Amino acid sequence: MTIECGTERIAGCQFNLSVMSDDFINIILGSLDTTDMSKVWRDTDDVTTCVRGRVEHVFDVVKAVYLHAAKTGKHVEMSGTFSIGCPGDASGDTYMDTDAERMNAANTIGINQKAGCKFALYPMNTTKYMDVIYEQIDLSKARGVTVSPSHYSTRLDGEVNDIFNAMEEAFVSVQEAVSHTTMTFTISANSPSSRK
Amino acid sequence: MTIECGTERIAGCQFNLSVMSDDFINIILGSLDTTDMSKVWRDTDDVTTCVRGRVEHVFDVVKAVYLHAAKTGKHVEMSGTFSIGCPGDASGDTYMDTDAERMNAANTIGINQKAGCKFALYPMNTTKYMDVIYEQIDLSKARGVTVSPSHYSTRLDGEVNDIFNAMEEAFVSVQEAVSHTTMTFTISANSPSSRK
Repeated sequence: MTIECGTERIAGCQFNLSVMSDDFINIILGSLDTTDMSKVWRDTDDVTTCVRGRVEHVFDVVKAVYLHAAKTGKHVEMSGTFSIGCPGDASGDTYMDTDAERMNAANTIGINQKAGCKFALYPMNTTKYMDVIYEQIDLSKARGVTVSPSHYSTRLDGEVNDIFNAMEEAFVSVQEAVSHTTMTFTISANSPSSRK
Repeated sequence: MTIECGTERIAGCQFNLSVMSDDFINIILGSLDTTDMSKVWRDTDDVTTCVRGRVEHVFDVVKAVYLHAAKTGKHVEMSGTFSIGCPGDASGDTYMDTDAERMNAANTIGINQKAGCKFALYPMNTTKYMDVIYEQIDLSKARGVTVSPSHYSTRLDGEVNDIFNAMEEAFVSVQEAVSHTTMTFTISANSPSSRK
């Protein structure tokens, strides 16, 4: 396998959204419906939602889904895996032929919502993966978030918009250096534990 | 970095448990309290719970936490990452000096609970990671579960006990071949979508 840096590759994210409320169905479906998914391929089943397309649109959509659920004030968690360059994820997609304008930016940038998030980057297909992580990720430049270490992950605290921006920058930076990158994350807002 | 196959290494899992009910606090705390965690190191914060120790006890505990929540009949999701051999996860643990008896086996084996689960294995530190996945995982022997492909993952359907057993077998098999392995999963039970 050759590393084709600079080639635009399809990105994706498989995630699940959990709303800790008896009203979870309306909030989850409302959040998915409110989000503009016109620039991504999308599939939802009983376990996860998967979106695929250009990397900026994948992040735009996942962030919007989370914000529209979290802004209800309910305790909302999302876990997922971003992926780019997966050898098993090659064909059948027309969603790369689109421009870079983020469809959900205008509707989400004004939403103020604090959260805590743990994420981990996995550069695949390399024996220098720890070097890649250390060299490519510079979270000191991440604006608006507090960064702290956690087991198997890095923790970010701050506004949801800033957290997703920091994760996107780290993901894009790492994927430029390796052929296949995945990134896991779990983000939590309005937890009774964090209200203390 | 050398691969030390055969050396017993500390395993861990960082997971979040989501209960889609107004009663989520009682169910989550009850599930964590009902699970015997005496053979694992454990840390819970507002985003995740992390358990670490011998691989069989890590799986025993995570499965028990999920089952005790899911048996309430509420829509319960868990996402997490199992890890073994992480270079950043080396010291300070006495939980490896214990026997193999699973503390939660007796209290969970009789719980019948259907679920759907998506999981993905990431053998790190190798350029042959796809070969490792194809060679080491033989889900055709997994008893009691239906196996199907999904984007970025493999889907398992069946009893929760059988699903976790299948994931444990796959994880243990892969970690014998590489120095650092992670495995992500999302499991969902009692979803209104799957009751159709």
